[in-house]
Amino acid sequence: MHTAIMVKTYPAEINMDRDQLVKCIDACFDCAQACTACADSCLSEQMVTDLRKCIRTNLDCADVCEATTHVLSRHTGYDANISRAVLEACVQACKSCADECENHAAMKHCQVCAEACRGCEQACRQTLAGMAA
Amino acid sequence: MHTAIMVKTYPAEINMDRDQLVKCIDACFDCAQACTACADSCLSEQMVTDLRKCIRTNLDCADVCEATTHVLSRHTGYDANISRAVLEACVQACKSCADECENHAAMKHCQVCAEACRGCEQACRQTLAGMAA
Amino acid sequence: MHTAIMVKTYPAEINMDRDQLVKCIDACFDCAQACTACADSCLSEQMVTDLRKCIRTNLDCADVCEATTHVLSRHTGYDANISRAVLEACVQACKSCADECENHAAMKHCQVCAEACRGCEQACRQTLAGMAA
Amino acid sequence: MHTAIMVKTYPAEINMDRDQLVKCIDACFDCAQACTACADSCLSEQMVTDLRKCIRTNLDCADVCEATTHVLSRHTGYDANISRAVLEACVQACKSCADECENHAAMKHCQVCAEACRGCEQACRQTLAGMAA
Repeated sequence: MHTAIMVKTYPAEINMDRDQLVKCIDACFDCAQACTACADSCLSEQMVTDLRKCIRTNLDCADVCEATTHVLSRHTGYDANISRAVLEACVQACKSCADECENHAAMKHCQVCAEACRGCEQACRQTLAGMAA
Repeated sequence: MHTAIMVKTYPAEINMDRDQLVKCIDACFDCAQACTACADSCLSEQMVTDLRKCIRTNLDCADVCEATTHVLSRHTGYDANISRAVLEACVQACKSCADECENHAAMKHCQVCAEACRGCEQACRQTLAGMAA
Repeated sequence: MHTAIMVKTYPAEINMDRDQLVKCIDACFDCAQACTACADSCLSEQMVTDLRKCIRTNLDCADVCEATTHVLSRHTGYDANISRAVLEACVQACKSCADECENHAAMKHCQVCAEACRGCEQACRQTLAGMAA
Repeated sequence: MHTAIMVKTYPAEINMDRDQLVKCIDACFDCAQACTACADSCLSEQMVTDLRKCIRTNLDCADVCEATTHVLSRHTGYDANISRAVLEACVQACKSCADECENHAAMKHCQVCAEACRGCEQACRQTLAGMAA
């Protein structure tokens, strides 16, 4: 990923810690990919009828993570209210998705996806904490 | 838009008022389109240097509205926590974007975009109010 | 939708027929919504195991339609090569998705979704034809 | 990124080389991030009036890369026609965006973004070549 060098070469001020920002942008992209893939893996499982809620939550989480990573990738005309609200939505989506995937972590893809979701949830919480400071 | 007939033909229960849902899904798509177009119109204005914040807020608002409309378009395995958090983020993004666009509503595209944002903000607030009930 | 007024108020030249453009932008958003909803309706059907391919194609088609409608909503720094390639991808995704949904049009949501896909496929073909002229 | 492990744990057949697929999925996400960030960096440059076309092309390229990476992240109900059309659109968007960014590579963010675009263009070409085999 070129995230770090893109953040570094931004030509103006950034109202967040740059290292934390890079970590959070990458965590959101990683989680969006894992959730998109997990929805598809669940769809191919024989027991797909038991995985409906997981598929749906995966799709929601992917959407929210991508919106969040886009918002965090922009620094021009920063509006803390939008960043905060989007990060809070992302924390919730990642938490719900990790909880759901952990219910059937015997399936390896759900276990991995839960890890990605927990990583993203934590990165978003840390970014929020940094903003409050 | 086929939104109403798609909501009507969903083959299971929906935990929200269907008419309100259709209104909100359509308002989010409408706002996402208006914001995408307004960012581009601002980019073509001679005074683009004064419109940086508007462009950025437009782009954020479009991203959040699309994530919201996706979440609202799904009913399987409903998780009220995700829907609520996403709707709250959408209220904030639409409010911020409407406030910004109204600052230069002499430009017709910003005036129209502000209307679309206010419409979406209100539709999301009503959906949230309906969920709380 | 505020699409028509947003296209009308764009402050510079547009290298496409504005009426056709509005029609195509709206058709892409409509198809993206229908496909997102159809994937979710299929996921709630008892016979979900027979609808895996439909769900997957719906998700792909929604993604491609949204990318296409974003590209068409921008006019600044127009690059015909990108617009053409994206429209061609959209024609293909809509055709594949309509073909798939028509296979089980006894389910009303698939029938409606197929209609939205055919409408979008046709709108994209017409936009492409207009570009070639 | 958990891309490799997600591809590895997919519970059915995949009609593409898995290593090439992982490389291409990651390249598309990387390019989407770089383009989103480059659009924002350009927007903050003093010479933003000279960067309108770059901003627009960045935004288009980000949209197409994300649609492509979603399609490539799904394997259930594979439709080669959709994958091929989307990959071809992505090659074009990345090529156009790299060409544009290279025009002003004195700005570091455009130089980095051009690298990400070229990497994604090449990964998509290789994936297409592998499909044709």
